[in-house]
Amino acid sequence: MFETLNAHSDPESVRKAAREGFLNGPTAGLASGFVQVNLVILPEADAAGFLRFCQANPKPCPLLAVSEPGSRICKALAADLDIARDVPGYRIYRNGVVSESAADVAGEWRDDLVTFALGCSFTFEHALMQAGLRVRHIEQGRNVPMYQTSVPLTSAGGFSGKLVVSMRPFAAADAIRAIQITTRYPQVHGAPVHLGDPSLIGISDLNAPDYGDFVSVGDDEIPVFWACGVTPQQVLVDSGVEFAITHRPGHMLVTDIPDNSLALF
Amino acid sequence: MFETLNAHSDPESVRKAAREGFLNGPTAGLASGFVQVNLVILPEADAAGFLRFCQANPKPCPLLAVSEPGSRICKALAADLDIARDVPGYRIYRNGVVSESAADVAGEWRDDLVTFALGCSFTFEHALMQAGLRVRHIEQGRNVPMYQTSVPLTSAGGFSGKLVVSMRPFAAADAIRAIQITTRYPQVHGAPVHLGDPSLIGISDLNAPDYGDFVSVGDDEIPVFWACGVTPQQVLVDSGVEFAITHRPGHMLVTDIPDNSLALF
Repeated sequence: MFETLNAHSDPESVRKAAREGFLNGPTAGLASGFVQVNLVILPEADAAGFLRFCQANPKPCPLLAVSEPGSRICKALAADLDIARDVPGYRIYRNGVVSESAADVAGEWRDDLVTFALGCSFTFEHALMQAGLRVRHIEQGRNVPMYQTSVPLTSAGGFSGKLVVSMRPFAAADAIRAIQITTRYPQVHGAPVHLGDPSLIGISDLNAPDYGDFVSVGDDEIPVFWACGVTPQQVLVDSGVEFAITHRPGHMLVTDIPDNSLALF
Repeated sequence: MFETLNAHSDPESVRKAAREGFLNGPTAGLASGFVQVNLVILPEADAAGFLRFCQANPKPCPLLAVSEPGSRICKALAADLDIARDVPGYRIYRNGVVSESAADVAGEWRDDLVTFALGCSFTFEHALMQAGLRVRHIEQGRNVPMYQTSVPLTSAGGFSGKLVVSMRPFAAADAIRAIQITTRYPQVHGAPVHLGDPSLIGISDLNAPDYGDFVSVGDDEIPVFWACGVTPQQVLVDSGVEFAITHRPGHMLVTDIPDNSLALF
């Protein structure tokens, strides 16, 4: 019924495969060149506060779009979209804990739910590779290593927590180039937040990421740290939110937005 | 006769003070906001080769202007200019060695001399400080520390040598910011060429710069290295050039070009 999904698939095909239940795995590498987004879905009562929180913490929570309350469409993201079904996997939060995973959330949908689409590092990784840089975890077929830091976020709207970062190792000249390239993409976490000594941001063991997979850092390399889209998921837990829906990590919403359209210059 | 020169002096006053012999010291901090340049003056026979060398090595040798052979003026740099007298101190090279220093080179001038004006890090340091970053050697009233590296330059036009770098220490977040800011100024060395471990570019002791002054690097800081305008002076020596004139290090030509006009974006 569905042909195999891959880098050459168009975004609509990926969403339809998820919608029809044929795709329930991670979206890394699918529909290359199109923006994939993190989703946070909250009742309207919490949405205004979360909007202020994102505004106050744009590096971990770069807002690409916010839906109308109750709406399962969002023209800013895609022409043909069902927010409750087009993601290959969802997480449902109740009273500050992840209570379950779900293939779709049509049955959980409410008239007051507001969807937040947040930029994802897949976009800048695409730009890094187009510039000839080698991204270790992609070359090794792993998830990017992610770490809980001790860096406090700016509390706002009833939300608070600490920054989660992703790490990519580079030789110094490539690290400088990676900073230049990601600076062009503020809507997908932008420039790194740290580089070098991990202990300065509260990471005790680089070899033991809190999320994702281990990748090695060579003696002649520098670990470079970007704000990570896992941050808001951790914030939902830390803030004890009553009800929320997100995508499952790695199971992103694939949009119709070309990656290159997010480049500042 | 001349009022005291300082940051508020206009560029023409600084040049005239040098021209009349009232200024024979370094130009750091004078006529703030205007571009100061490194000078390399060569006979026309060597100039075409040096131009190719600069083109092949734009980070240490960012060309801002090249004069007509024999001319002591250069409208691209300043309206009222005497290249042979407006620099507070010159160096004269004969057969690959610095043979003497001079307050002016009017007596050495020849009809075949071509002047190369190369960007200087003063311009990007001004931009760094305007962005609120603290530049250690300036705060400590010292010269920037400079190091001979093992990084080979691209040989061209009969010129060759190794890269000389300047070093400024920053905390990681400020290092990232400094990379962003200096990226905007490719005509004054642009983005750093290295950061972190000095040994990777052949620097054995960060506390013993080859030129300039020592500055300390804190445990929570990263040394950041930029290509340096001393590189071409070393190249003249290494290449055994028959005759050349440069400014004395730190004794720059002050131009009428506003620093901000060199920002790419």
